Amino acid sequence: MTRTARGNRTRQDILGAAADLFHKQGVVATSPDQVIEASGTGKGQFYHYFKNKEGLVHEVLRGHLEAIRDGSSPISYEIASWDDLERWFVAHLGLQKRFDMTRGCPFGTIGNEVTERDELIRQDLSLIFEVVKSKIAKFFVKEKANGRLTPDAREDELADFCVAMIQGAMLLGKVKRDSQLVETTVRETMRHLRDYARGAPRAAVQRRRRIPTRSRSRR
Amino acid sequence: MTRTARGNRTRQDILGAAADLFHKQGVVATSPDQVIEASGTGKGQFYHYFKNKEGLVHEVLRGHLEAIRDGSSPISYEIASWDDLERWFVAHLGLQKRFDMTRGCPFGTIGNEVTERDELIRQDLSLIFEVVKSKIAKFFVKEKANGRLTPDAREDELADFCVAMIQGAMLLGKVKRDSQLVETTVRETMRHLRDYARGAPRAAVQRRRRIPTRSRSRR
Repeated sequence: MTRTARGNRTRQDILGAAADLFHKQGVVATSPDQVIEASGTGKGQFYHYFKNKEGLVHEVLRGHLEAIRDGSSPISYEIASWDDLERWFVAHLGLQKRFDMTRGCPFGTIGNEVTERDELIRQDLSLIFEVVKSKIAKFFVKEKANGRLTPDAREDELADFCVAMIQGAMLLGKVKRDSQLVETTVRETMRHLRDYARGAPRAAVQRRRRIPTRSRSRR
Repeated sequence: MTRTARGNRTRQDILGAAADLFHKQGVVATSPDQVIEASGTGKGQFYHYFKNKEGLVHEVLRGHLEAIRDGSSPISYEIASWDDLERWFVAHLGLQKRFDMTRGCPFGTIGNEVTERDELIRQDLSLIFEVVKSKIAKFFVKEKANGRLTPDAREDELADFCVAMIQGAMLLGKVKRDSQLVETTVRETMRHLRDYARGAPRAAVQRRRRIPTRSRSRR
């Protein structure tokens, strides 16, 4: 391995260990020493790559954002259908189940810790939530443009509703150690969203068309 | 003041200062020394009333639960109508606005910090969320029993949906410093819930009855 490749590897090890600890116990409870130990690196290496804990959190969140953008995140944010949207919700629950419901969302966990002193971190998280919301909103925009949502559907607000819901459901799921609660909350949310599709102009056209087709087949 | 009254006052001062700090910056970031300073008490007094920080968090959460139960909380949990339910949602936003959207929900903030080591605190929070959920579910049970909700409405799940939604909305509202996001998410949620009322057997009866009344008044 070249010197740069080895350096990159060390940096990635530190970032990976930090991301896991932040997800598990939050940022405030995690010390640089814990990250150094969990990553199997040294103090010198840590402070060579990261000025301080804030710099580390910033880099971890930038890594999350990159993964959301380039599709390498464990959750797929490319939503082109209702099934994709449902899979997006269910993937969050899958993530929680992998940790026996002892963890929430990595972003929500850090987000709840943010105080007025953490402006950089708050901006990082704001951007993550904004990018996720935009990816969901894009689906609603396309559906509405194609007449498959009722005209009163507000795409951005529906996307915010999705993000808020999964955050709240994961928090409750973690506190109550209850996966079923997350499932039923996702189901309620999908039911609400699909109501916009059921009442849509296209859906109405399809319903009208379906009647003669059906009666023909009965002959 | 008697010695006991003075003691109670000191204890309440400590609990009040702790509740405020936990809400502002979370439990992990708050040291006993900060609580002692903020409450204007002394180390001796603090450790006379509270064994350690976990004991303090436990007592703060018990205080919150008591306030929810006896109606002394700043948010009213007595929900007897759709307007009450909407007021319950909006009261959470009011709480956030009082702190310029820099804080989330006191329970959510602590809930996201909980790790596998904090079993007592997790149980305290579980109980709080369960009591809140039950109070909301009771309203849905009554509405459904009176034929004012569609038969497929699941009261407990709808109540979980309400609690999850307000938790997620407050978290996003805090991270994005955005009160409008909370407002629109509450509106979507209320729209979804009211859909169960619109399709209800009673609502259908009322719609049928309303037509002749209206035509009479037009004569």
